[in-house]
Amino acid sequence: MAWSNARNKELMERAHAVIPNGMYGHESVAMMPDDFPQFFQKASGTRLWDVDGNEYIDYMCAYGPNLMGYGRPEVQSAIGAQLAMGDTMTAPGPGIVELAETFVSMVRHADWAMFCKNGTDATSIAMVTARAYKGRKKILVARGAYHGSAPWNTPAMSGIVPDDRAHIIYFDYNDLDSVTKAAKFAGDDVAGIFATPFKHDTFTDQADINAEYAKGVRALCDEIDALLIVDDVRAGFRLARGCSWQSVDVDPDIACFGKVIGNGQAISAVLGNNKCRKAVEGIFVTGSFWFSAVPMAAALATLKLVRETDYLEHMVKIGTLFRQGLDAQAKDFGFALRQTGPVQMPLVMFHDDPDYRFGYEWCRQAMKHGVYLSPYHNMFMNAAMTEADVALTLEATGKAFDYLKANRSTIEPQAKLGVLKRLLAS
Amino acid sequence: MAWSNARNKELMERAHAVIPNGMYGHESVAMMPDDFPQFFQKASGTRLWDVDGNEYIDYMCAYGPNLMGYGRPEVQSAIGAQLAMGDTMTAPGPGIVELAETFVSMVRHADWAMFCKNGTDATSIAMVTARAYKGRKKILVARGAYHGSAPWNTPAMSGIVPDDRAHIIYFDYNDLDSVTKAAKFAGDDVAGIFATPFKHDTFTDQADINAEYAKGVRALCDEIDALLIVDDVRAGFRLARGCSWQSVDVDPDIACFGKVIGNGQAISAVLGNNKCRKAVEGIFVTGSFWFSAVPMAAALATLKLVRETDYLEHMVKIGTLFRQGLDAQAKDFGFALRQTGPVQMPLVMFHDDPDYRFGYEWCRQAMKHGVYLSPYHNMFMNAAMTEADVALTLEATGKAFDYLKANRSTIEPQAKLGVLKRLLAS
Repeated sequence: MAWSNARNKELMERAHAVIPNGMYGHESVAMMPDDFPQFFQKASGTRLWDVDGNEYIDYMCAYGPNLMGYGRPEVQSAIGAQLAMGDTMTAPGPGIVELAETFVSMVRHADWAMFCKNGTDATSIAMVTARAYKGRKKILVARGAYHGSAPWNTPAMSGIVPDDRAHIIYFDYNDLDSVTKAAKFAGDDVAGIFATPFKHDTFTDQADINAEYAKGVRALCDEIDALLIVDDVRAGFRLARGCSWQSVDVDPDIACFGKVIGNGQAISAVLGNNKCRKAVEGIFVTGSFWFSAVPMAAALATLKLVRETDYLEHMVKIGTLFRQGLDAQAKDFGFALRQTGPVQMPLVMFHDDPDYRFGYEWCRQAMKHGVYLSPYHNMFMNAAMTEADVALTLEATGKAFDYLKANRSTIEPQAKLGVLKRLLAS
Repeated sequence: MAWSNARNKELMERAHAVIPNGMYGHESVAMMPDDFPQFFQKASGTRLWDVDGNEYIDYMCAYGPNLMGYGRPEVQSAIGAQLAMGDTMTAPGPGIVELAETFVSMVRHADWAMFCKNGTDATSIAMVTARAYKGRKKILVARGAYHGSAPWNTPAMSGIVPDDRAHIIYFDYNDLDSVTKAAKFAGDDVAGIFATPFKHDTFTDQADINAEYAKGVRALCDEIDALLIVDDVRAGFRLARGCSWQSVDVDPDIACFGKVIGNGQAISAVLGNNKCRKAVEGIFVTGSFWFSAVPMAAALATLKLVRETDYLEHMVKIGTLFRQGLDAQAKDFGFALRQTGPVQMPLVMFHDDPDYRFGYEWCRQAMKHGVYLSPYHNMFMNAAMTEADVALTLEATGKAFDYLKANRSTIEPQAKLGVLKRLLAS
């Protein structure tokens, strides 16, 4: 069946009438290549179907949450069983205790757990806890890192007042000298230092964590008695079966998880050690659905798969095949790629493509041949992906490279990137 | 079967090891009367069952979300059907457009809709939008009103810095003079004014909205070109089939909904008019699960029930029976009650009970006889409640009044209220 998008277009028109900008947030296709579908009808395993019936191998995994495959049977049956018993009730189900115990047993530094909905809930709880810990104010954050969309950390400045960021100090990721300088600048007022597990900012090459940097930040936090917070919302359980900095043998005081932990059910988590238990016990945070039993049942089922299957090694294997296949293909067609970050969370960029025009057109062509990739945001592997999926993917990307090669001189830059520039400049 | 709580106690002990304070947020029983169950095993219609098998007629409705009865079949089948298709995907399902159109058609002032998870997400989006609207900073909020638990509005001050509230100005609810003074104090820098539909602060009598006050605040906002925001998260669809201020014929610029709109599924909403569309289009907010299709399917099913059934008139009828029954009973037993707020969201307090000891003991006794009430937070009616439920409820409350009468001189104040005082004083 030939690719078509009549129904998607019609829905986008209707959406523009009743939804700001036609869509908002990270799932808006405003910054994606032209013609990317804004709506999906169905998801199963590694596949998505848009509202026009086009099928895609999905490398975005709902921007992370799909870890074990869409509709993974073990998780779906946990959801179904709990739904029949109760979901949002006047108090949580017993599953919240089992889930907290499970996290504490799986994540090395964790002595306690709290559950919420958004990644932003988790990072904001960590931020407020850090301030409550010693009554200090300054929060150190890497320049360009995404930690959520609350006033203190959203990337767009419209509606944000200087007071929202009065005590946020920025440093450069992987640069111990820079973070040390930022801490000195804050004097004796550093409450906490945030770190993503590796550098996964959008629109730029990813960078692996430097072990010396991670150890240095840990030592700095110990020295000045500030909390070290690893924001594992995006990368959690794709790099390790615990906090991602396990790989460099560094434990945070607080880790924030989200996205994957219920394989798509709405739940995020704050996992802390006993050092900051009293601090977190003094703050007040809550949400209407933070105690719902179904997402916790889904999380228990997902964490069981994390512990008992080779999902992680499998993602590394499939991610490696994908990366190697693309490199070989690029070479064949006369292109050079920058593939950065862990293979489980790949980012693919073209050399000599400062305005992303090749990356954008390549993704657009691959999409029309049934593979959903992103030209600016890290992608995500999931446990359901097979070698056959990678072979099918490479067929599609081969056609995309072929198109690029044939049209090299006439490909236009993407006008939509102006949206981003306007947002970030506002 | 006699009431017992062995399993609840055991779970609470386990919870204390791995969850801060043993539980957090509004569903913690730390401020409830002694022996209230912290965990529920099952919910159906008007009923909850705790982990020891005790059954309760539930007047808290999950602190709001249960509007149509737990596990309402029309909503459950929408959830099941959408779960089989897809939930959290790389883009929303088509249901988001239908849901936005539905809200715009049902809520008089609404020209657009955005969906999120927490009530706090919705109020924070409204707050940031108000600041983006004219580039002003001051937000006017009624003293003591709950609008969420982010740094700008959480009721506990631990971990909160003065900068978080630098531009929040407080006034007294239902006092037009007070809000006018607050606006004057802010000079030409008022971005927006928040209002709950009526006064529903905890631990104090509720107060109905004064129509002249609501009209006056609307006129003030028009005069100074600030946004009027009605926070309908707690009361939404329990007072009206649109924004709650419909009852006094006042339209806000933005209304925040949450809790009930998916009958327990995690979804909240921001509904605004065209005046502030450009402002909201310039801000960046998002969440990992804001585009999930299942809560939207649940919301479509719930809103259909809102439009097509007499759920609202039914709740008024049942709520009136409940209120009248309690008044008669109190009189019989020699007590006087203050029953405040709309009957759909009742609050029951005892006269001459400054430390709440009678209210607390009365709720505790009712709980042990199978009725779950709150002594400090407004309660909630739901559409599944029957006259037979009210009769059973009054049997239990009769026993509670009887106990109070017999033990009047020996009832102790609740030590747990100190927790609240410490939190609010911190």
